[in-house]
Amino acid sequence: MPGDDLAQLIVTALTAQFADTELSADDVLVVAHKVVSKAEGRVRTLSDVEPEERALALAADLGKDARHVQVILDECEQVLRAERGVLICVTRHGFVCANAGVDASNVPGSEDVVLLPIDPDDSARRIRHRIGELTRVLPAVVITDSFGRAWRHGQCDVAIGCAGLQPLDDWRGRPDANGRVLRATVIAVADELAAVADLAREKNRSQPVVVIHGAGRHTAAEDGPGVQAVIRPKNEDLFR
Amino acid sequence: MPGDDLAQLIVTALTAQFADTELSADDVLVVAHKVVSKAEGRVRTLSDVEPEERALALAADLGKDARHVQVILDECEQVLRAERGVLICVTRHGFVCANAGVDASNVPGSEDVVLLPIDPDDSARRIRHRIGELTRVLPAVVITDSFGRAWRHGQCDVAIGCAGLQPLDDWRGRPDANGRVLRATVIAVADELAAVADLAREKNRSQPVVVIHGAGRHTAAEDGPGVQAVIRPKNEDLFR
Repeated sequence: MPGDDLAQLIVTALTAQFADTELSADDVLVVAHKVVSKAEGRVRTLSDVEPEERALALAADLGKDARHVQVILDECEQVLRAERGVLICVTRHGFVCANAGVDASNVPGSEDVVLLPIDPDDSARRIRHRIGELTRVLPAVVITDSFGRAWRHGQCDVAIGCAGLQPLDDWRGRPDANGRVLRATVIAVADELAAVADLAREKNRSQPVVVIHGAGRHTAAEDGPGVQAVIRPKNEDLFR
Repeated sequence: MPGDDLAQLIVTALTAQFADTELSADDVLVVAHKVVSKAEGRVRTLSDVEPEERALALAADLGKDARHVQVILDECEQVLRAERGVLICVTRHGFVCANAGVDASNVPGSEDVVLLPIDPDDSARRIRHRIGELTRVLPAVVITDSFGRAWRHGQCDVAIGCAGLQPLDDWRGRPDANGRVLRATVIAVADELAAVADLAREKNRSQPVVVIHGAGRHTAAEDGPGVQAVIRPKNEDLFR
């Protein structure tokens, strides 16, 4: 609920379910954004939304609820594609995803839609440090959403915010197993951790948090640059 | 090496390293395509390549070795983008990736480049059934490569071939935790399994195979449709 102390709820649930396991700085807490958004009050009720002209036109084209489209446009910096019932948007954070991340699934009220957090990296940092206060341990925190991909069917969970890890593991300039210098290898660690967690939960089980143990190779003491560092700037992007 | 019995090599290595652990049908063997390609002889030596006009022109534009570009073009169905030193291609399989998957890292000869397998789903099926012959167990097999993404920095490992699992877990039409019907949820399970494995290995350690235990929720007795089912057909693709 809006105002909930999500870190406290996570620690309570962890203690209840894993009484024998201590949280460690090698752990990654992967948190589905939906609970973060709800705790931050990032929910809108469609009956309160008055669609404007552009939303009405797009909704008619796409066969969508115009109020839902208005909420999407409110979260958008740019609409990249509006075809076949799909709105691919650049969000205010710079993420490219369907419907600007506005989602009606796993939301209690039938008229409610959930938005992405305003600053998911900041959300991750705050959850991390609040868990640190409560447990004296600073695990890494990754906040996720399910994004579709260009060119491939299906969605993968990706990181939209993180703290306590480098989201990109940059191997450029380092040697491969044969001593040849790697020229392009940058591993999207935060996104791969998000994918791991998605495999561990089911979409209808209300399991917003997954703990990944033994990920110490990927965690760090500092919060790090967050997922902002993963966004490809517009002027380097070949697919807008 | 070309002609190696890769399944036999994998089983031997598994037995040596995990003497106490039986392979099971709940396991997923995630295999980096490079060893598959090498065993299938999908390696070319640049000194044998005579670049044609288009390769020479692209190489000059991109600051690349024209022989390398020729090999890439030979693997291409279409070049989507050729800018900033990057060639984004549609491969003959239909994958969209940099350099049509042609790669010079972790290859012994300094003039050698490795191509993707001709039919990675078939490669996965053959490895799976050969492991079945050798061990009487049929684990799932996923063959992977590291692909960059539109809009985001860094690469994630993705599945380019698979057998023994449904690459897409389709939740459309099923209810969420509140009973609302999911309308767009299709989980790219094979790609998420590829991502899991990438976190477990390091890029300079010659670790081509990762075993994921406890993935029985995602494995299947049948080979399934393979990663071909993940490719978004050209006429449904908004980003070509």
